[in-house]
Amino acid sequence: MSRVTRWLAPRAVAHAHCDIPCGVYDPQQARIEAESCYKIVQKYNDSTDDVFRTRCLAVKEERAELTKHHIDVMWHDYFKPEHVARFPDLHDVCWKASKQASLVKRTVDLGEAQKLLDLIDRIDMMWRETGGPAATRLAAG
Amino acid sequence: MSRVTRWLAPRAVAHAHCDIPCGVYDPQQARIEAESCYKIVQKYNDSTDDVFRTRCLAVKEERAELTKHHIDVMWHDYFKPEHVARFPDLHDVCWKASKQASLVKRTVDLGEAQKLLDLIDRIDMMWRETGGPAATRLAAG
Amino acid sequence: MSRVTRWLAPRAVAHAHCDIPCGVYDPQQARIEAESCYKIVQKYNDSTDDVFRTRCLAVKEERAELTKHHIDVMWHDYFKPEHVARFPDLHDVCWKASKQASLVKRTVDLGEAQKLLDLIDRIDMMWRETGGPAATRLAAG
Amino acid sequence: MSRVTRWLAPRAVAHAHCDIPCGVYDPQQARIEAESCYKIVQKYNDSTDDVFRTRCLAVKEERAELTKHHIDVMWHDYFKPEHVARFPDLHDVCWKASKQASLVKRTVDLGEAQKLLDLIDRIDMMWRETGGPAATRLAAG
Amino acid sequence: MSRVTRWLAPRAVAHAHCDIPCGVYDPQQARIEAESCYKIVQKYNDSTDDVFRTRCLAVKEERAELTKHHIDVMWHDYFKPEHVARFPDLHDVCWKASKQASLVKRTVDLGEAQKLLDLIDRIDMMWRETGGPAATRLAAG
Amino acid sequence: MSRVTRWLAPRAVAHAHCDIPCGVYDPQQARIEAESCYKIVQKYNDSTDDVFRTRCLAVKEERAELTKHHIDVMWHDYFKPEHVARFPDLHDVCWKASKQASLVKRTVDLGEAQKLLDLIDRIDMMWRETGGPAATRLAAG
Repeated sequence: MSRVTRWLAPRAVAHAHCDIPCGVYDPQQARIEAESCYKIVQKYNDSTDDVFRTRCLAVKEERAELTKHHIDVMWHDYFKPEHVARFPDLHDVCWKASKQASLVKRTVDLGEAQKLLDLIDRIDMMWRETGGPAATRLAAG
Repeated sequence: MSRVTRWLAPRAVAHAHCDIPCGVYDPQQARIEAESCYKIVQKYNDSTDDVFRTRCLAVKEERAELTKHHIDVMWHDYFKPEHVARFPDLHDVCWKASKQASLVKRTVDLGEAQKLLDLIDRIDMMWRETGGPAATRLAAG
Repeated sequence: MSRVTRWLAPRAVAHAHCDIPCGVYDPQQARIEAESCYKIVQKYNDSTDDVFRTRCLAVKEERAELTKHHIDVMWHDYFKPEHVARFPDLHDVCWKASKQASLVKRTVDLGEAQKLLDLIDRIDMMWRETGGPAATRLAAG
Repeated sequence: MSRVTRWLAPRAVAHAHCDIPCGVYDPQQARIEAESCYKIVQKYNDSTDDVFRTRCLAVKEERAELTKHHIDVMWHDYFKPEHVARFPDLHDVCWKASKQASLVKRTVDLGEAQKLLDLIDRIDMMWRETGGPAATRLAAG
Repeated sequence: MSRVTRWLAPRAVAHAHCDIPCGVYDPQQARIEAESCYKIVQKYNDSTDDVFRTRCLAVKEERAELTKHHIDVMWHDYFKPEHVARFPDLHDVCWKASKQASLVKRTVDLGEAQKLLDLIDRIDMMWRETGGPAATRLAAG
Repeated sequence: MSRVTRWLAPRAVAHAHCDIPCGVYDPQQARIEAESCYKIVQKYNDSTDDVFRTRCLAVKEERAELTKHHIDVMWHDYFKPEHVARFPDLHDVCWKASKQASLVKRTVDLGEAQKLLDLIDRIDMMWRETGGPAATRLAAG
């Protein structure tokens, strides 16, 4: 499927439901912040301007902190014991993702920022495989 | 396209780029918070428990505030003069969406929460029509 | 009324009232944060101390973010359709002010910090011309 | 100088200067949040709507917290030992103002909200009498 | 070492050191917020005042959120793979503590608030058994 | 009671009680953040890495701000007029501690970070001498 086709497709097609308080979850919240980190690292490395580079480091700190927060929300709010039964490495993947976000605060190595995205994508996969999209997001009208 | 097919599809297929600081934008950030408001209103109306209902009102206040923040980010950070030229009602749609989020703080009317989602979907449409997905999000690996 | 006369005028002349939640508004909230940015830029340029200059950039980031927040509050919470009818460039002025605050994050050019103050003063003028002081602030006892 | 005269006086008459980081101070920041508390208490008492009243209590909590923060900033950031020498009750007034803001969180008594405004006005007076406006605010252009 | 003995033991006996950014950790940060929740639940149940009870629910929401944050910090920032090797239920205890903090948001059952304290005490025990006090806190002078 | 003895003493010896909202206080909250500042200054001085040093300055800013917040909470929420009667320098010690935290934002001098810890220990002493531990913390089970 081409990019154009995908973006034209409806994003959700049925009424979602949830039975817990604040039952809306989406790993995209973590991914969006982690993409921010990735781009900041990229721009940092492409720049020689001291003011810009200092700002990159300060802003990356915040974005990586938000990434950690959204990973935590997935870990302790979305995932349930039955999900751990299905994915025995669930705790470990979330833990590694959090620790990778800490590392992304400390580094300007683009490969590390990519590893963070990859770990979030593994959380995203577990969310999808456990029915997350239909259970937690509302359908577009 | 079925829901299953859609979720199986890659979410982004090419390397994104941006030429401004912190160039990652996605109206899903606003929509996720607004869906939270929608579900909270729904649960509020389905409940007769005083403790639960009070919590719904307090939490909705925060979620609607986050919705406003993410709408603001789209308005003043993502959209550029050329986008206003293309969508003359751009300011008005963003303004109405912000005001609707204020209204959602004040009400427990589900129809108003739906109107907020609809207004965010209009912002989402303008983001898509102006090349937002490819320009602002990173491709999944 | 000239700018000087405006500053000489009493800031609140009658018991304020409001019929919406949280009806207290004053562009001084945005201006105070923007003045902070101005002074930080000034001090940055006057200094040769690396520790101090790095702190200036990190703190300016926060102050400019607060400026944006307070501009947003004026735009979507204080201003009403009748104000847009009276000031057709209202959306544009608020938009430019927000974008200027973003620029102030990125620069150490004092002229840009001054432009931000000037744009906030235009919002302040529209607030005054639409009866903002009497309608939104409480009179000193 | 009487209170009325004070309000009539220009708020900033010369280019401000400061020799410490972030030298912009204005008790209006505390007063604006405290006015918010006052109006919320007023509206709470005028309403019989349960949803509205619950929201009033939740929002007042935040506004009073911000009031405390801005009082704290005046106390420990603006005021210097020479100001305490001039106003021996400076610590006591700031302390009472902070404690009054705590009380305003707990009460829906409009008289207590007024007392908070009065205490902030005493801080404002000490700020003016110690040259605060000229020293800490920038002149309008 | 018994719990009583533990409380009698010195809290910091040597100059701490760390080789990672921000190496100061102490489960007391989580416990202090969780004690706040406990007392709020207690006071809620002892009161018949509607204003007070509504405030209890709103404030408890924030305090339980802070509790979760501090539990998360212990989990992903303090604990290392060798600690998991020593305490195989480390992930599970932290996960249950986070979920219990979520539950404490939802309930006014004092027993649930006590269970949260107990779970934090288990994290505290693992922190102590892994040398946390000496490694992460500074000795009083 | 000597400092060493104090650290050896049990931290909570009876079921705590409080008669005000949110009656849990502990100067350790301020001390933990101030220790963070101390270690950051130490690491800053031990490093020659520009990225790391810039991060130190940005993170220290936040940690010192949290220190100030927790000092403020002790000052205006925990301490009562009878405590000022007993410790006439109470206002002055808290004021100096807050100002010292401001200074710690500005400096990379380890001695200044130590002075902040010492001032917080004086607040801690006043909290202990006024029965703070038993009155404000819950006993471990």
